[in-house]
Amino acid sequence: MKVKAYAAKEPKGKLEPFEYESGPLGPEEALIKVEHCGICHSDLSMLNNDWGLTQYPFVPGHEIVGVVEAVGDQVTDRSVGQRVGVGWNSGSCMSCECCITGDHNLCATAEGTIVGRHGGFAEKVKVKAIWAIPMLENVDVVSAGPLFCGGITVFNPLVQFDIKPTDRVGVIGIGGLGHMALMFLKYWGCEVTAFSSNPKKADEIKGMGAHNIINSREPKELEAAQGKFDLIISTVNVTLDWNSYINTLRPKGRLHFVGATLEPLSIPVFPLLFGQRSISGSPVGSPAVISRMLEFTGRHEIKPIVENFKFDQVNEAMARLESGETRYRIVLSH
Amino acid sequence: MKVKAYAAKEPKGKLEPFEYESGPLGPEEALIKVEHCGICHSDLSMLNNDWGLTQYPFVPGHEIVGVVEAVGDQVTDRSVGQRVGVGWNSGSCMSCECCITGDHNLCATAEGTIVGRHGGFAEKVKVKAIWAIPMLENVDVVSAGPLFCGGITVFNPLVQFDIKPTDRVGVIGIGGLGHMALMFLKYWGCEVTAFSSNPKKADEIKGMGAHNIINSREPKELEAAQGKFDLIISTVNVTLDWNSYINTLRPKGRLHFVGATLEPLSIPVFPLLFGQRSISGSPVGSPAVISRMLEFTGRHEIKPIVENFKFDQVNEAMARLESGETRYRIVLSH
Repeated sequence: MKVKAYAAKEPKGKLEPFEYESGPLGPEEALIKVEHCGICHSDLSMLNNDWGLTQYPFVPGHEIVGVVEAVGDQVTDRSVGQRVGVGWNSGSCMSCECCITGDHNLCATAEGTIVGRHGGFAEKVKVKAIWAIPMLENVDVVSAGPLFCGGITVFNPLVQFDIKPTDRVGVIGIGGLGHMALMFLKYWGCEVTAFSSNPKKADEIKGMGAHNIINSREPKELEAAQGKFDLIISTVNVTLDWNSYINTLRPKGRLHFVGATLEPLSIPVFPLLFGQRSISGSPVGSPAVISRMLEFTGRHEIKPIVENFKFDQVNEAMARLESGETRYRIVLSH
Repeated sequence: MKVKAYAAKEPKGKLEPFEYESGPLGPEEALIKVEHCGICHSDLSMLNNDWGLTQYPFVPGHEIVGVVEAVGDQVTDRSVGQRVGVGWNSGSCMSCECCITGDHNLCATAEGTIVGRHGGFAEKVKVKAIWAIPMLENVDVVSAGPLFCGGITVFNPLVQFDIKPTDRVGVIGIGGLGHMALMFLKYWGCEVTAFSSNPKKADEIKGMGAHNIINSREPKELEAAQGKFDLIISTVNVTLDWNSYINTLRPKGRLHFVGATLEPLSIPVFPLLFGQRSISGSPVGSPAVISRMLEFTGRHEIKPIVENFKFDQVNEAMARLESGETRYRIVLSH
C-alpha cells in the first residue's frame, strides 16, 4: 500500500511530499488514518540527526491521533473505526522481562515510531496494535496528540514514583512538556511550583495550575526554596546549576530528568548522601499508564494548550517550533 | 565529670592522652563506659579536617560498644548496666519532620558523635539515650562496633529501597563497608556481586557471600554485566567510570552512593532516561533500622571481620587504617 507523507531527505532538510510503500499489514498491527499529529522537540532532533539515529528520507511525527482503518488477523481488541493515539513507541517485543511486567516502554528493543521507520506526518501510519491506545470520548481530539509523547513523559513519573497529593512538586521549564506537567499536578492534588526563566509567562503558568513560580535565573529564589520539594521534574535539555536544584529537594527528594540533556550532569555526592536524595530519568510510559493518563485527562477536562497548523504548513510549523516561541505545543491537522 | 580520651591537637596530628570536662548528664542523655570502638575512614577524614568540620582538640571514635553507666532523669528505656552501641549520630532534634517520621538519621540538626564534640576514643562518652542502641545477646561484642556506622550505612539502603531477595545486587569496593554489605546481602537472599580491583581478595570475598566477582579494572568484565543489577552500592570515595556502572543496571536499577566521593559525579542523562534508572546516596540509618540490623546480624550470626588493637596502640591503628591494608575493619579495645 502506498502512503502519502512528508519527509526530509537529509539532516536539517525541508519536509517535502513523499510517498512510500508500507507493505502488508502484519497480524498484530493496526493501520491508522491520521487525523492530527503533534510536533515534539524530538522530531526536530531526529530531523537534524542530533542523536545519530536518523534514516533518510525521514518522516517525523509521533504524537498521532487517528482512526483505525484496518487491523491484522491476531488483533482482537482494536476495531475498525475506533479512534486511537500513538506516541514515541510503535511496538515492543512483548516477551522480555520489561514487557511481561508491564514496563513496555523500557523494552530494550522497543520500536520508535520515527526510528528506522516512517512516522505520523502522513495520511496513514502502521503500528503494533497494543501501542495504538484507545481514545476516550471525554478527551479533546484536536489537542490530544501531545498527550501521547510529551504528556505521558511527565505523567509517568507521578505513577512510577508513587507521588502523593500531599507532595510538593516542581517543574523546570514550562514549555510543551512542562505546561502539561503543571496541569496534571494541579489535579493530582500537589503543591505545584514552576521554575521558569520567562516572567512574561507568569499569568499563563498560574492559570495552568502552578501555586508558585520561581525565577530560575535568580539564585536567591532557588536558595529560598531549600529543602522544599519531594519531586522536581526537569523538562529542559540545557545544563543548569543542578546542585542548586538538588538543594531545593526535601530529604528523600528526587530530581527527575525527562528532558534529553546531552551534556553529562555534574552531581555532587554530599547533598545526595546527607539527604538520601535521588537523581533519575525516564522515557514516555507503558500502554497501561497511557490509558490511565487518558482517564485522568478526561475526568479533569485537561487540555494541552496547542497552536494549530494544517499538514501542508508543516515547514512553517517546524520553524515555529524551532523559534522557541510556541505556546505551548503544535498540532498538525489534515 | 572528667573524661580520659585520646585527642589530636591539630590536623593530621598524633592522638595523645587528653582529659576533658564532660559537664552534667542531661535529662535525655546516657553516659556510656566504652568497651570497644571501631575506626572508620571518616575518623581519619575528620582528624585531617578534610571536610572543614573539625574542632581541635579532636577525639575520634563513632563505632562504640559499651555499657550504660548512668542515665538522665527523662530516660525510661535504657538502664544502668545495659550494653549499647553508638554510631555516627549521638543525637537528633526529635521534633522535625524527619525525626517524627522515623528518619532521625536525616535530621538536619542531628548531632555527630565526633562533630563539635568528643567521640569514643575515650573511657566514657555521653550521648542522647535514643541513639544508644541496645545490643542483643547473640551479636558478638568485640566486632560489633563497626556495625553502628559502616554496617548500618550499607544495611540501610536495603531497607530504604525495599530490596528483595530476588534482586541482583553489586557492591563496589570490598573494604570496611563493602565486606559487611556482602555479608548482609548473602542472608538477604540476593544474587551478590563484588566489584573489586584486588584479585588477591577473591577467596575471602567468596567466603563473605559474593556469588560473583567482577574485576573493576577490566572494562570488558563490566561490559559483560550490562543490564544486570537492581542495585549497586558504591562504598568507595574515588572517582570511577560511573557511566560503565550505570550501564550494568537493569531497567529501574539504582546506583547508590554511601562512600563520600569528593569529586562531583559525571552522569550522562540518556542511560538514566532510557532505563528509568536512579542515582542516589544515603547516610547511616535511624535508631529503628539499626535495631533491625542487629536482629538480622544476630539471627544470621554475621560477624564483621576485624583487626584488634588496644586503645594505647591508637596511633598504630590509625596508621594501619591509612595504609589501606586493613582486613577489613579495625576495633580498639580497653
